[in-house]
Formats: sequence, structure tokens, C-alpha cells
Amino acid sequence: MAGVNVVRGSAGHGEEDTMTESIDINADIAESFGRWGLGDDQELVGLVSTVNIACGWHAGDPATMRAAVEMAAEAGVNIGAHPGFPDLLGFGRRQIEMSDRDAVDYTLYQVGALMGLASTSGVTLSHVKPHGAFYGSIARSAERSVAIGQALQALQPGIPLLLAPGPGVDALRAAGLPVVADNACDLEFDDDGRNIIEPRPARRDPDSVAAQALRMARGTAMTVSGREVEMPVQTICVHGDRPNVIEVARAVRRVLADNGVAVRSAFEAGS
Amino acid sequence: MAGVNVVRGSAGHGEEDTMTESIDINADIAESFGRWGLGDDQELVGLVSTVNIACGWHAGDPATMRAAVEMAAEAGVNIGAHPGFPDLLGFGRRQIEMSDRDAVDYTLYQVGALMGLASTSGVTLSHVKPHGAFYGSIARSAERSVAIGQALQALQPGIPLLLAPGPGVDALRAAGLPVVADNACDLEFDDDGRNIIEPRPARRDPDSVAAQALRMARGTAMTVSGREVEMPVQTICVHGDRPNVIEVARAVRRVLADNGVAVRSAFEAGS
Amino acid sequence: MAGVNVVRGSAGHGEEDTMTESIDINADIAESFGRWGLGDDQELVGLVSTVNIACGWHAGDPATMRAAVEMAAEAGVNIGAHPGFPDLLGFGRRQIEMSDRDAVDYTLYQVGALMGLASTSGVTLSHVKPHGAFYGSIARSAERSVAIGQALQALQPGIPLLLAPGPGVDALRAAGLPVVADNACDLEFDDDGRNIIEPRPARRDPDSVAAQALRMARGTAMTVSGREVEMPVQTICVHGDRPNVIEVARAVRRVLADNGVAVRSAFEAGS
Amino acid sequence: MAGVNVVRGSAGHGEEDTMTESIDINADIAESFGRWGLGDDQELVGLVSTVNIACGWHAGDPATMRAAVEMAAEAGVNIGAHPGFPDLLGFGRRQIEMSDRDAVDYTLYQVGALMGLASTSGVTLSHVKPHGAFYGSIARSAERSVAIGQALQALQPGIPLLLAPGPGVDALRAAGLPVVADNACDLEFDDDGRNIIEPRPARRDPDSVAAQALRMARGTAMTVSGREVEMPVQTICVHGDRPNVIEVARAVRRVLADNGVAVRSAFEAGS
Repeated sequence: MAGVNVVRGSAGHGEEDTMTESIDINADIAESFGRWGLGDDQELVGLVSTVNIACGWHAGDPATMRAAVEMAAEAGVNIGAHPGFPDLLGFGRRQIEMSDRDAVDYTLYQVGALMGLASTSGVTLSHVKPHGAFYGSIARSAERSVAIGQALQALQPGIPLLLAPGPGVDALRAAGLPVVADNACDLEFDDDGRNIIEPRPARRDPDSVAAQALRMARGTAMTVSGREVEMPVQTICVHGDRPNVIEVARAVRRVLADNGVAVRSAFEAGS
Repeated sequence: MAGVNVVRGSAGHGEEDTMTESIDINADIAESFGRWGLGDDQELVGLVSTVNIACGWHAGDPATMRAAVEMAAEAGVNIGAHPGFPDLLGFGRRQIEMSDRDAVDYTLYQVGALMGLASTSGVTLSHVKPHGAFYGSIARSAERSVAIGQALQALQPGIPLLLAPGPGVDALRAAGLPVVADNACDLEFDDDGRNIIEPRPARRDPDSVAAQALRMARGTAMTVSGREVEMPVQTICVHGDRPNVIEVARAVRRVLADNGVAVRSAFEAGS
Repeated sequence: MAGVNVVRGSAGHGEEDTMTESIDINADIAESFGRWGLGDDQELVGLVSTVNIACGWHAGDPATMRAAVEMAAEAGVNIGAHPGFPDLLGFGRRQIEMSDRDAVDYTLYQVGALMGLASTSGVTLSHVKPHGAFYGSIARSAERSVAIGQALQALQPGIPLLLAPGPGVDALRAAGLPVVADNACDLEFDDDGRNIIEPRPARRDPDSVAAQALRMARGTAMTVSGREVEMPVQTICVHGDRPNVIEVARAVRRVLADNGVAVRSAFEAGS
Repeated sequence: MAGVNVVRGSAGHGEEDTMTESIDINADIAESFGRWGLGDDQELVGLVSTVNIACGWHAGDPATMRAAVEMAAEAGVNIGAHPGFPDLLGFGRRQIEMSDRDAVDYTLYQVGALMGLASTSGVTLSHVKPHGAFYGSIARSAERSVAIGQALQALQPGIPLLLAPGPGVDALRAAGLPVVADNACDLEFDDDGRNIIEPRPARRDPDSVAAQALRMARGTAMTVSGREVEMPVQTICVHGDRPNVIEVARAVRRVLADNGVAVRSAFEAGS
């Protein structure tokens, strides 16, 4: 069953807990801010197994964050933090240069803030998935990913980072720190297997996203030039601010189900 | 020994745990922001028994907050959160109208954020003291204080609010929620015992502040018109952004010591 | 034809320039911010005679502001500034206490910022209409309205403030400063003729708003209790963030046209 | 008199208007923000010929900006805008990736905002000098500098950009757009003549800065390795947030005077 991506415990402890094909689906929610709505959180929490909650720096105000935790808890999905760069104006999607020390502090601040709001629902966070350009800066850097991964263990032992395969994931694994490999099934990949970022997600054809999701659940992905590359991920992401994300997520679930792939939490063993 | 303000447990459970006169001294720190420094945190943590750490909304960035936690932990003082209104421009010293629900969410966000940064030092927070105009809005409102006090118990059982005597303190006590009575010895009081707020603290005569601190340690305060009023507080505050705060704090300690009043944590029983 | 509200020059110099009934219709635009869209500016500029462009403090980023100026210039409508309180999180709809001096400086900053972006379209501003809670604080205060009205004359001689009838309008007129009386036809009035504010505008019945608009064009308004009160305004407002604002604006125009009331700029004589 | 840097008109029209050696000295002011003071603007305006006023995005609130304009106008120095990246937390000293279109809009917003506040003093701006990482991003880019330089001409015809020698200055000159060559005498240069940025300026030896200032007034600069490089600038900068900037500026003036170099505006012909 080589090449099939089976569910593992949150820290990648290495034991396959089932022989059935399955995959986790994660989505960003709570990306509204004050007067401005974005996404359909209520609908989306019913279509995924894991949500990443914006923490106020690129999106997400306290009321939105609390309501999102409540919706996600009600839906019974994993609830993680989605910290970003301090950039409301750019929605956290543009690079800001900073030290790794600042990157650690910014993460702790935002994850802690979400813990504060999650406490009213009695929710324990399952993971931390950085947002946008911050995500990229961590996934590409062995030093930054380990610095953040270590700091998070003092805040909540065992809590994993979600990151795209690359130097960050490799360094976290080498350091014995919990990490879950993640990638977006609703973005295109270049031939090196890297996501092609959309600053402002557009509508995507649900069927082609679903076909990609199925490939990723089985350990590969199709690039823009039609090549198939290795894509060893434990969770796949759909973007909550994509205009037709609900339709896309439904197509993903249908195609996974039609092909015998279960949607199941990547964190079951760990949390 | 009626009228003497002795140290009690954090929740004000009402038992006097000592016959020696003593008082807690608290000060706000971490009120720098990025490039802008304010106060002398390193010096101040050595002169008080309790610090309130700004949480990023009126002052205090993550690096400043973490460094302040480290300084305070090294000094062995109580470390609490100092959440404020979302108003860097006004330093949290101007009123912003909002619902109690928002006031709760804003508190949880900021207290959680500090917990995130305090985790790297292994520090557990001892209390929450709101800042500036936010403090006033809570101290004056039975509803708001209880809403916040209750929400904090889900985040950290037993954690008290610090508030000036008034409707908030009364309501929290009536609800059986932990509260510590606080007031500033470095602000003037009107004849109703209410602080006269300085938007931007000026230099104060250290000896007159120290004389007031001694009175407050013994349960009264002198008003601007020279009347003595009841002031039943368990902790007294000096403002970290007062230009001569270090000199003021030294005078307070000297006068308290000269008069046999110990400086001792108001939270000993509770934390 | 007493009681009919005819168009006057921007500074309310008092000469009726026509006997035909007419009214100005203004709407707020550019209330998106970065990733977050709000309103349908492109459609709305075609349905009104005057727009108020958010200036970045409660809504509106530079790119949105510039694009809105371009749309409005293309549509040939009056273009004014819509400065608000520094409160993105509250969308400028909650009161923040401050000095009149700060209120003046905040206005000059934001109006100047819009002038900077309007320069690329060669547009001269026709007016300044404050936003939300800032609007209310000015309309109710003789001192604040005159302080702002005077300061604006140094920035652009003759530029009027748009404000609801009340102490602000009266004081500006008494001081000989330019002012245009404004009120919202899509909010309800209490029996004192004061708007009942909606923090987040809901859908409204287009026909009832249109009927109110017609009354206001003729100098009166209906209150929630069904009383008719004097409402001497030169321009009427529809809120750009009301979900069905386009439908509402169309109904207003249709009913005005059906009753022989022209939609015409309140600033024709003055700008 | 080859190699000597004489004063030219603001747009660098190329005519030497005097045979006397002279140089313009510029400094950043208004870099306080709300409660946080930074620099000694009142003292500094008396020691330079030109000031750059922060515009609220990296530092500088409206009240600070207005007061700085008033101080500078009283002192009779040139008053320019000092726009920066939207980054209070990083004081505009860290790179943020963005399009040139955004860079133009951000400049127009901030320069316009300062014009709004300068209007109360009847002041016309003499120039625009970008701040920190924004400055660097413009000085290094032919495209960005020309895009901004052109947009500014619609706002105020003839207004020059101040930039360090490099692709930006060259491109503006080639495009016939007004530009004044600037560099800091209080930063070190690497052997390519590029400034070595200090995120947080430290105390510098006044005499060594003054010696560098004298060299720069004469068209060269000393690098860290002791090489002398060409440095054809019309104005030299001292950083207002350097702790001993007043002492440094005094030393610069004394050494220039002792060596017969006049301090004179770089904008005399142009403004």
C-alpha cells in the first residue's frame, strides 16, 4: 500500500492506526473582522474535520473568534490557531521581514489569545497552522519552524504545527517536535511541488479540486504542467475565503467518499 | 485594629492571615511599544510586589511583554495581565462605548495572549487588572465586572480581578467571584473617593505620595480638599509611566518600612 | 411653497436657485478594507448625486479610496470625504471620547489623505461628511462643529460640512461657515427627529424608505410613532453598507421621479 | 572646484547658484505616537535646514504632526513629508512586500494627510522623503521611484523626492522628475557606499559624524573599511531618534562652520 497517505497521530509518532484510506480536511475560518464578513463559517465547519481560527492579526476579531470556536465545537471538529503577520491591510498575505524571535513571540501571543477565547467553550486546541506569508516563512525555514515548534511545547505539550512538506517539516521531525504535513488541494502546484499563491482566491472548478484532493489523500499531487509529484500530507486544506468554497468542499467530500477515502482527523491519536 | 487593611487571600475570603500590617504594591509595566520605550521596567520590578503587564491593545508588543514577564519572574513578584481598550493612539485612557459581551471577549483575548508569552517563563498569572478607561468602565459596572469575572474563571480558576472599590468590587464579592480591592496612591482623590485621572501622568512629590500610600495601607485616603475617606484596599498602585515613578516607589517603600508596614503580596493565599 | 426643501448653494447662502423641487442623494462608498469587500460602489455611484468616501480610519484603504474616486469621477457625482473615529474594529460606529482639538486634527488628517488620492483623478472635493459616531459627536456639538468647520476653510476655502439638523448645523450657520443639512432616509427617526442608529444596517423595505425620502425632499419626516416632524435637509443619505442598498436607492429614485422631484447636487452653486 | 557638492535647485536643474560651499541638513521629526515620545523636535528644528515629518503609518499621530509643522514653521525650515510602511510595530524599519501601485497609493495618502494638518499653519510642503524600509525600496527601484515621483506631481507640481544616490535617483533624473540626492551622515557606509541600517539607532560619537558630514558636504564619504567613495548628495540626514541626536547635530554644524561650509536649504531655487 505504498504511497497511500494514512492517518497518523498528531506528532507523527509513526504508527498507522488503520489500514483504511483516510485524510483530514482543514479549512481557515474566523476570517471576518468587525463589520466585514468573509466566508461562511457555519456551513464550512460541517464539511471539514479540522478548522484553523484566525487570531486577530491578519483577520479575526475576538467576537468572531469566540463564535467560530463555538460553531466548530458544536460541529465536533478539531480546532486550531491560525496566527498571521501583523497586517490587516494585506490580510497576512505579504511577506514582512522579521527575526525568528519575533516570529516566535507573535505566534505565542496569537495562540494564547485564541486559548483565552476558546476557554469559554472548554475547548483545547488541537494544533497551530500559521497563515499566508507567515506560513510560507516558517515552512521554508528549518530555524524558524523549530524555534516556534519548541516554544509551543511550553504552552501546550504535544501541540503540532501544520506545515507544507519542506525544510520546516523536515527540521521539526528531526528535532522530534510534533508536526502534521499539510497542503492545499485548492491551489495549483508548480513542478517543484510548491503552491502557487493567490492573494485573493478566485472561484475554482469543484471537480478539479476534488480530483486533486483524491490524489493528495493518496500521496501525490498534479502540477500545473500535468506532472504527478510526491505529496506526503496528512491533511489537505480548502481556503475559507474562496468565493465558492462551500461548493468546492462538498465536491471534495463526495469524490473522497465515492473512492472509499474516509475523512478523519489527523490528530485522533494525539488529542 | 479596625480600619487597618491587612493582607487577605486573593479571593478576599475574609480571613486575616496575619496581624502584622502589610500592603501589596502594584505597578503597570510593559507599556513600551515597538520603537517607543516607556517606563523603567527593570528598576520598577524590584520595588513592587505585583506587576500588571500590558497586553498589546493600549501598549505592549509581544517582545516587550515577554521581556517584562522574564524581568518580573526574576524579581519574584506577582505577574498579572493588564488588558485595555483597543486604542494605541489614546493609550487606552479614553472611553470607548461597547457591549459587556465585547468587554469580556477583549479581556479573554488579551489575558490569553499574555498567558501565551508567559508560558516560555513557566509563569502562571496571579491576577487581571484592567487598564485606564477600561478599568473605570468595569469598576463602575456591576454587570460588566461580573461578566468578566465569571469568564476569567473558565480560563483560570481562582484568578482575581483588581478593581477600585465600588459597584464592580461589590458585585464580584456578592457573586462569590475573586476580587482584590485596588487603588492608586499616586493619583489624587475627589471627596467621593474617586481617582482624578491624569491622561499623561506628571511628576509627583514622592513624599506626599508616600504619605498617601501609608494612609491607604491603613484603610483611608486623603482627598484633594483634605478630607480623610475610607479606602479599603488590599493593593496600592503606582503608575509606571509617571516620569519619576522610580523615585516615588522608593519613597513609598521607605515610608511604609519606617512605619512598620510590610510590603507583601495580596495573592499569597490564592496563588 | 413653504416647507419645500429646495436646493441651495453649498454654503446655504439662502438663495433658491430654482422653483422645481429637487433633492441631493448622498451615499457612503469605499467602505471596503483590504481583503474585505463591503457595498457595491460601482452600482451605487450611478444612483446618487453625491458620495462620501471613507478615509481609512473606520474603513477604506488607499487602493479602495483611489478606485472609489475614479468610479465617482466617471459617474460625475460630487465627491466628499467621510472621516471617522480611529476604530476599524468598531467600524467607527461607537463613541470614543476625545477633545475637540483631536477631532479637528483627525478630520484634517483624513480629508487631506483623500485629497492626496483624489489628486490622481484631478478631483476637487465638494464636501466633508463625518462618519458614524464621529458624525453624531459633531452634529450635537456647537463647539466641535465650528472648530472643524473653521479648520477646513484653511484647507479648502468654501468646503461645507454635511450634518444632521441640530446644534452643529445651527452653530456653523451662525458662524457663517458652510454647511449642508443632511439626514438619512433609510434610518428610522424617534419623535424628536433623531436617527435611530443601526450598528449593522439590515435590509429595509425599499418602498417605505422611498416614501420617507419623498417626505424629506419636501421638508418633513415620519417618526417611528407615525408623527410627521420638520426635517429641513438639502441632501438625504442611503447607507452603502445596507445589504439591499441598491434596491433601496432605485426605489428612492423612482418615487422621487414619479412625484416630480429632481435629484440634483446640493453643491451646484458652491463648487 | 570639482567634487564639491554645491546647492542646486530642488529639481536638480543643474545650475550652481553660488560658489560658496554649502549643504542642506535634514532630520526626521514627529516620530512620537500618542503617549510615546521620541526625539526632541523643538531642539532639533533649530539645528537643521529641513525636516521630514512622519505621517502616521510608522510613527506620528495627527496632534504630533500638527505640532511639528508649527515648530518647524516657527523655525523657518523646509517642511516635507516622511511616509512609511504601514507598520507601527516595526517603526517602518522592516521590509513589506507590495506592488508599486500600493507604494504610490500609500505615499499619496500619507503626504495628503500631512498637507491636511499643515494647512492650519499655511505651510506648503517642500519635499517628500520616504522613511526606513520604504525609503530603501524606492531608492533601489527605478520603477517604484518614477511611479511615485510622477504621482506626486499631480498632487503638487515640482515637489521633489529625497532619495539616496542609486537606481531611484538616476531614474527620476532620466524621467525629468524632481529629486534631491540625500544620505545619512550618521550611519556607516559599506564599501559600495550603501548605508548600514540600524533598526534602533544607538549613540554615535559626534565628532566622527561631523567629520563624515564635512566629507559629504564635499561630495565623498568614508566607508567602514576606511575607503573614500563618491557621495554626491545635496542634503545630509541626522536621525531624530538617535539618543544623542542633538549633540550630534550641534557637532555637525560646528565642524561645517569651522570649515566654511554654510548650511543652506537644498530647495531654495525650487520652492
